[in-house]
Amino acid sequence: MNGFIEKLNACAKKNRSMLCVGLDPALERLPAGIPRSAKGVLEFNLAIIEATQKHVCAYKPNAAFYESLGAAGHRVLKATIDAVPEHIPVILDAKRGDIGNTARQYAISAFEKYGADAVTLSPYLGGDSLEPFLQYSDRGIIILCRTSNPGGADFQNLTLKNGKPLYMEVARRCKEWNKKWGNVAVVVGATAPKELARVRKVIGDQMPVLLPGIGAQGGDAEAALKAGLGSTPASVVVNASRGVIFASDKSDYAQAAARAADLLRKSLNRIRKSLQ
Amino acid sequence: MNGFIEKLNACAKKNRSMLCVGLDPALERLPAGIPRSAKGVLEFNLAIIEATQKHVCAYKPNAAFYESLGAAGHRVLKATIDAVPEHIPVILDAKRGDIGNTARQYAISAFEKYGADAVTLSPYLGGDSLEPFLQYSDRGIIILCRTSNPGGADFQNLTLKNGKPLYMEVARRCKEWNKKWGNVAVVVGATAPKELARVRKVIGDQMPVLLPGIGAQGGDAEAALKAGLGSTPASVVVNASRGVIFASDKSDYAQAAARAADLLRKSLNRIRKSLQ
Repeated sequence: MNGFIEKLNACAKKNRSMLCVGLDPALERLPAGIPRSAKGVLEFNLAIIEATQKHVCAYKPNAAFYESLGAAGHRVLKATIDAVPEHIPVILDAKRGDIGNTARQYAISAFEKYGADAVTLSPYLGGDSLEPFLQYSDRGIIILCRTSNPGGADFQNLTLKNGKPLYMEVARRCKEWNKKWGNVAVVVGATAPKELARVRKVIGDQMPVLLPGIGAQGGDAEAALKAGLGSTPASVVVNASRGVIFASDKSDYAQAAARAADLLRKSLNRIRKSLQ
Repeated sequence: MNGFIEKLNACAKKNRSMLCVGLDPALERLPAGIPRSAKGVLEFNLAIIEATQKHVCAYKPNAAFYESLGAAGHRVLKATIDAVPEHIPVILDAKRGDIGNTARQYAISAFEKYGADAVTLSPYLGGDSLEPFLQYSDRGIIILCRTSNPGGADFQNLTLKNGKPLYMEVARRCKEWNKKWGNVAVVVGATAPKELARVRKVIGDQMPVLLPGIGAQGGDAEAALKAGLGSTPASVVVNASRGVIFASDKSDYAQAAARAADLLRKSLNRIRKSLQ
């Protein structure tokens, strides 16, 4: 088993958690007393990581929230990733996708500069755009399959000539790309449980599914777990961002985030148990 | 006509040029005497811009080549964009695509922090992922339709139930998204002239097509222009990166880039004339 997938499963097992906390620190939602600046974002992230680390199987900073801070955001993202304890994998949510020559630069950025354990990628440019990432055999390559947003259906659910939707062709290719290094995972939104069930059948019972879309986006965790659970501790990695990190907008924000993360962790575990 | 499209056409007309120079300064290809560092990249970019600015209709820095430099790369990208004369549009080649809440952060980064005139985006996440960008009515939103890389066909050329390939559905939606602000353009690779001809029919004769894939990628400029030309000065914007900026690996690199850009500009104009 590949380095990232192994680390993810180990952390899910150790912390008895399917929960990934999304570190998406929108400036305007930072709690009272935290400066609305790059420095404030770092202070906030460090407190959130410190408070929630026993309750997660991974952290997922989304690059957009750091890029929008300018050059300082870059340093904050690096410092955030560095602050995550070694046994917890970090998924850099970047959704990159470019031609081979350029993809290689993005891979250097994600894996060598930031030191992320895994990165999310868009499949629109096809196999050769993913290859420079796949070559990092110890890292995770998490490919967008069926996203959680309303527009996710616009193209991803279009029916192909063979009668199957586009996202199923992406899932089929993900299984292929996984053969060499075993380092591929997929993104399917909790808002699309029917699609998730079909994807799980294609990818087998071990490939992790990163599942955004519960909480603010309205996805139903129970329906999604029923559709998506496989056989490994981290077969479904449930991402929660806003619902955890902004659980309180007051000075108790870190404790509130810890409580929210722990509640969600337990609630997911209860659902899992009820399905077994 | 929208601010970006207007600026692009005006610059194409003023410089009699369909050429966009891609500022993709891979460290290992910097000419002799230029330090292989962020500082060297900026020195290189400034010299390239100074030397080629009379021959282009736009510049297109690709974010990947700056991100891979770390935090310093961010400052270099900003300084590069700032160094482009006001009348020449800057296309930030970022190929971003994320859910609305996150896309808004990427839009802030591209348009407000970097001050780019236009940005390239991936359509995989659908309409609502593009909306935060489209709302910048004076900027350009350049959507990947049929990319120039070999893997471009993997998903983009899949035939849908209606008998049309996926990229044609993307083109159709681009035309729709363009209705509100007239700020949409598409990417079609020079390596796919048949596809380009079909896309041009769908998008009408004014929407700019950003055309990568000539030069290092082997696309045929004549076939592509025949397939893609519309009625406006910048109906096809031909991108060249490596073939221009790395025309010489010696200290004459800036003059060599100017010569390469001017030759390419003239060659494209000759082809255009021969097709009229």
